[in-house]
Order: sequence, then structure tokens, then C-alpha cells
Amino acid sequence: MCLTTGAGLGGPLGGHVTMVTIQPVKSQTVQAEEREREADHPSSLVALFGTDQPLRLDCGVDLAPFQIAYQTYGTLNADRSNAILACHALTGDQHVANVHPVTGKPGWWETLVGPGRALDTDRYFIICSNVIGGCMGSTGPSSTNPATGQPWGLDFPIITIPDMVRAQAMLIDRLGIDTLFCVVGGSMGGMQVLQWSVAYPQRVFSALPIACSTRHSAQNIAFHELGRQAVMADPDWRQGRYFEQGTHPHRGLGVARMAAHITYLSDAALHRKFGRRMQDRDMPTFSFDADFQVESYLRHQGSSFVERFDANSYLYLTRAMDYFDIAADHDGVLAKAFRDTKTRFCVVSFTSDWLFPTSESRAVVHALNAGGARVSFAEIETDRGHDAFLLDVPEFLDISHAFLQSAAAARGLTEAGR
Amino acid sequence: MCLTTGAGLGGPLGGHVTMVTIQPVKSQTVQAEEREREADHPSSLVALFGTDQPLRLDCGVDLAPFQIAYQTYGTLNADRSNAILACHALTGDQHVANVHPVTGKPGWWETLVGPGRALDTDRYFIICSNVIGGCMGSTGPSSTNPATGQPWGLDFPIITIPDMVRAQAMLIDRLGIDTLFCVVGGSMGGMQVLQWSVAYPQRVFSALPIACSTRHSAQNIAFHELGRQAVMADPDWRQGRYFEQGTHPHRGLGVARMAAHITYLSDAALHRKFGRRMQDRDMPTFSFDADFQVESYLRHQGSSFVERFDANSYLYLTRAMDYFDIAADHDGVLAKAFRDTKTRFCVVSFTSDWLFPTSESRAVVHALNAGGARVSFAEIETDRGHDAFLLDVPEFLDISHAFLQSAAAARGLTEAGR
Repeated sequence: MCLTTGAGLGGPLGGHVTMVTIQPVKSQTVQAEEREREADHPSSLVALFGTDQPLRLDCGVDLAPFQIAYQTYGTLNADRSNAILACHALTGDQHVANVHPVTGKPGWWETLVGPGRALDTDRYFIICSNVIGGCMGSTGPSSTNPATGQPWGLDFPIITIPDMVRAQAMLIDRLGIDTLFCVVGGSMGGMQVLQWSVAYPQRVFSALPIACSTRHSAQNIAFHELGRQAVMADPDWRQGRYFEQGTHPHRGLGVARMAAHITYLSDAALHRKFGRRMQDRDMPTFSFDADFQVESYLRHQGSSFVERFDANSYLYLTRAMDYFDIAADHDGVLAKAFRDTKTRFCVVSFTSDWLFPTSESRAVVHALNAGGARVSFAEIETDRGHDAFLLDVPEFLDISHAFLQSAAAARGLTEAGR
Repeated sequence: MCLTTGAGLGGPLGGHVTMVTIQPVKSQTVQAEEREREADHPSSLVALFGTDQPLRLDCGVDLAPFQIAYQTYGTLNADRSNAILACHALTGDQHVANVHPVTGKPGWWETLVGPGRALDTDRYFIICSNVIGGCMGSTGPSSTNPATGQPWGLDFPIITIPDMVRAQAMLIDRLGIDTLFCVVGGSMGGMQVLQWSVAYPQRVFSALPIACSTRHSAQNIAFHELGRQAVMADPDWRQGRYFEQGTHPHRGLGVARMAAHITYLSDAALHRKFGRRMQDRDMPTFSFDADFQVESYLRHQGSSFVERFDANSYLYLTRAMDYFDIAADHDGVLAKAFRDTKTRFCVVSFTSDWLFPTSESRAVVHALNAGGARVSFAEIETDRGHDAFLLDVPEFLDISHAFLQSAAAARGLTEAGR
């Protein structure tokens, strides 16, 4: 095994990796510098792949060398049979259950991952890696291109969801794990779950795809294209060469984030959260100030996002989602993709999710049924929209817990996961 | 009466105004210049209001002098009882049923307005005026500020939907019309219809508000704020002083339009129109080119819009919609706004409109019922989204036609409208 630790992660690394604790970085001014540093020198574990182990990309390019930044939680058992791969969404990263090294905020899925939780770190060995194309330490457009010594920028090859999963499989090989007990993720993470179950069915004992789809809809492509155009319209984007030129397309990326953020919430959630309430005032100012709370909230979402995320990564990852279409690789018949799968599935959707509506999940379930798969399906009643998978929605957490318990019993895992 | 004709509109103007024909302007390069000229010298009829007739704005400013650009179709009868005011939507204008002077395209509501159509120009006298704050000849941010000789820009006062309606009422006075036979409009136009019926109930015999609401929702405000931020993020916006500085925030306004355009269509309509079909290719290019038809379509929507619309007007008119809230001016009780109204209403919504969903129209109907109004309500089954009110949706056209026929009978208008 060839594992390296990122900066700030002390301690020897044995065959089993223990829980990583990262100190919060509080200063906002430090964040931009921190973020840039993370691209090549992440505050994570790192798996390096040399020129002898290229990542074969769908676009035809062999990417080498490259690296995968990842976090692990819990302990891998002797059988190596209790590993769960958690896949992150578009703007997520590997810091699923520890303090984020740039923002100082808690892990993005601490509702689900931790001692006694659905993804029980006392029982399972949880792995989460930054996707290829990301900006938190796995090779992506903000990483240094070894051929030039400069950030890749738009010279980075276009990547796809299958490419992300292929890279994850190489990481799992590196960790000496043959079969994953479970692959779990929401949104773009759910796309990776589905791709895992199609590309490596024999390596996935159970799969929990949440709030996702086997292909991006026209409306979803439209929202992504809007975001990309917003980034590219910003003169500070400099055709993707903003690092070298000392700029960053903050404004364009902020607008892209605002647009995306609206799609993550439901109309009902926005109404409940903000309605038409004014921000620190009783009367309209008759100006373009953020009179309404929802305006103030959106502006904050835009500005906080640009501190922690790379604009080019945003272009690449949205593109990967747009290209995703499992059926297209199987003569247009989704059921063919899942034929004879032995994987146990639990498909989850949320009633108020209009980005990945229940109809998309139902199509997955129908295809799984047609393929003879073992599948359960839960549509969870909530008004919290697509974001529900990241939030404390008890029914969702309970269902995830129950599914994993049942899969663990079938896998013969003891309560201690050993 | 003090009516003036805009450039390019020859012929004497009598007490009755006849149908205006405007030659199409085909050259794209001419469009930007044409658009700028329209702000002060519209290819329309113009009503001028001097310093002795200020427009009292909700923000406290008296706007004077100002002008209203408008078009009329058909003939006003001797009783002056057959006048219909058509109110345009956010990016519409007065050119409801004639070739547009800038784009050379047909009028935006020719499905509804014309000889023998629901708004029958053989029977009724149709008036459509550019709203205050617009950019097609009614005073707005791109008009010349008489105090400086420069375009108003952000020195233009914030306007509201009630301000727009107050200006229209002054135009109707000028035309010597006491009671409108009908006020009709969709989206922002529908907001004006509702405001007319609340502010001047005795002057509105019938009202046809379509795909609208008595107040903008948090989600709608969010989408508008996104659009404004996109415009303001464009360095060519120059704090609204782009005319003087020889720039125009094309990119920001294009992004704003793309975002808005997604909200005008339904997911189903986008799927039917484009799905995941590629643009002039079979395989993905693995690039940021517009691989998908929906991307190409959106880019076109963005770029064609900026040729015909003023960026500052976009800021002002979206703001007016955000501020709109009829109930807020009536102790929070919508029914109070419509108490004892004599106006006949027909409220129309479309099943796939997620910008102004049927629930909003139903709230209007409930309030009208509570106020004892004469109201009919039609929810029209279509997958074409919010834009349906501008499209050839037969059931919608039939219902509008039937409502006007019935109202005409009640008003005692003969078939010839006299």
C-alpha cells in the first residue's frame, strides 16, 4: 500500500486508519489561501498513483500521475468486509464527518455518519474521497499540471461520473478492499452509487442512492449551463487561468451558487424560512438593497461558497453530471444496466425535491425490478427540498439505519462490525 | 387631449386612433442603436405629462415630466365603453399586436389580439402601454433625465406595480375613457390587472388576470435577486452608468435572462422540446461547448434578449414585482382588497406553471369569493409552463374569448362593439 498523509495530519499510518481530527481554521482571510493549498497538499490522507497506474478517462485521455484525497472513520475489520464508501455531492468533499480544514465547519454528513448513527463509525469503516475533478486534494483543474508546473485550468481533461467511480475503485484496491459493504451518497453522490452498482456489481454488497437519477434532465442541464455561463461571463475567470493572473471569478461563481441554491430548496421551504419577511427593517427601502431576508440569505450563500470552492472545478463537476446517462451505455434500456445484480438496494427520494423528483427514483426502482434486483424504495415526506438528504430528517435517517442494519445481518457482520 | 406620435408613425391622429403598422428592422447590428433611441423617441404613440401633472410614486417621489408610450388597435366607440387595457409582462412592451420596431418580430400577444380573436380588434379598442420603468418609450432608467441631460440610470426612483397602474390611469384619463371594459394581462401584466381592480374598482368592468399572484413568493424573489446580482456582477454595468461609458452589461443580463427563462418553462416542456438530445452531433465533445440542444437554446435566449432590453429596466421591473403585495396594504387580509367589487373576474392559471402555480390563483379566487365578487376560475391543463399565456393554447384562448363575449353582453356591447 502506498498511502501518504496530508499536511497537518500527524501520526503513523498502519494497516488500519483511525479517525482524523482537523483543527478549524477560523479566519476568513486565510480561507482563500488555504483553499488553494488544499488542491495539491490536502489536509487528508492521500493515495498517489504514478505514471504506471493511469486513470483511463471516458474522453480517451490517460490521466497520470494523479492523486486521491480521502478521509476514513472507524476501523476496517479483519475480513475487510465492513467498508462503506460515502460519495459526496457536487460541492461536497471528503470531510464528511470532521471539521472542515478551510471553513472550520462540521462535516457535511454528521447527521448520518458517527458513533451510533446510520453509518456507525463504531461498526463500519467509512471512506470518503474527494472526486477526481474536485478541488480538495484529488487531482482536478486547480491541481498543478506536472507538465507545466501551473494549475491545469481548462487543460484538465473533461471527466465523467464513471471516471470518478473508476478512480474510487483504484483507491479501494489500494486499501486492499475487495467488496464494499455499502456505497452511499446523495445527488451527484447518488449518481456515483448507481454507477458503482452498474460498473462493479460484484464489489457492491449494498447500495443506498439518495435523491438522484440515472441521467440528468433537460431542466437540470439548463440550470448547470446557467451556472457555467455565469462563471465564464466573469472577466476575472480569464479563460480559467485566474490562478496565474491573480484573480478569481468570485462574482460569477457566486451567481452560479445562488442559482443552484434555489434549486436545492423547495418553494415551501423558502416560504417557511423567509416568506416575504424583511431583513432588519419594517418598511421597504425602495432601493436595490437586500430588503427581503431571502435576498440576504442568497447573497450570503453566494459569497461564502466562493471562499471554499474552485470555479473551474464547478465547471468540470457540473459537466460530469450533465453527461451522466446510464441507459445510454446500455442500448437505451436502463434495466439492462442492472441485469442479474446481486446488490441490495434502498432507493430514497424526497417529496419536495424538484431537482431530482421522485419520478426519477421510481424509474430506477422499475429498472431494478425489471433486472430482478433486491430493492426497497422510500419516498420521504418533507418540505425541505433536495437538500433534505443533508439535513436532520428523522424518517430518512431511520430508514438509512434500518437498511444498513438489515444489510449487515445479511453480510454476517456482528454488532461490532467484525 | 395631448397625443404625439413617435418617429416613423405618419398620418394624422384624430379622436380615434387606428391600427399602427411598423416596418420590421432586420439588421441585428442596428438593434442596439434602435433600442437606445426607443427610450426617448419610441416608435409608438406617446402621451406627455408635464411638470404640472406629476406621477406620485409609492416611494414618495413626484415624477415629472414623464411620458407613456402606447399602441392602440381597433376603434373606440362613441360611448367610449369598448376599451380594453392589455398589460404587458416583465420583458414585454406595448407592441402587443404589431411588428416590433427593434426585433422585427410579430407582436407578443397576436394569439389573443387581432380581428376575430379573443381581444377582437374589430369589436374592441385595445390599448397597451409600456410600463413606467420600461425601456420602450415610457419614462424609465434609460430615458433622459431632464435635470442632467443623461440617462436616469440608478437615479431613477424605484417604482412599484401600483405606480405602473397609476400612470396607466393617467393615460386612460388622457384618452377620455372613464371605465375600461376589460383589463387583461399575464404574469407581471396580471399583477397590474389585480392592482387595477383594487385601486380603481369602479373603472374596471371586467378583469382577466392570468398566471399571476397578488404577491411575489420567496422563491420568485430569489430568482429575481439572482438575475439582479448577475447584472450587477458584470463590470460593464458600471453602477448603471453604462450608456455614458459606452458599455452594456450584455453578459450579466444574458445570464439573468437564462435563469428567468428556465422558470418560464416547465420541466416537462424542456424534456419534450430538448430532452438530452445533442446539438448537431451524435457524441459528446468532452468540452464546455453547447453539446446539448437545451444549452444552445438557453444561450440563444440570453444573447437575443440583451439586444432588445435595457439592463437597468430589468433591475427596476423585477424589483417592482418583488415589492408587490396587495394584502399588505389591506391589514394582511386579501379579501378586504376586493370587498364589494362590482368587477367581473376570470382568473386563469396553468397546471405546469411553477412560477405562479395554481395555488396562487386559487388564493385570489378565494379572496374574491370572500369579497362577494363575480368570479370564474379556469385552471388549464398544459405542460408548457408559465409561458403558456403567450402561446397558442386553444383552451386558454377559448376561455378568454368566452369570458369577453359574456362580459360584452353584460356591458351591452353589440357585435360591432358599438
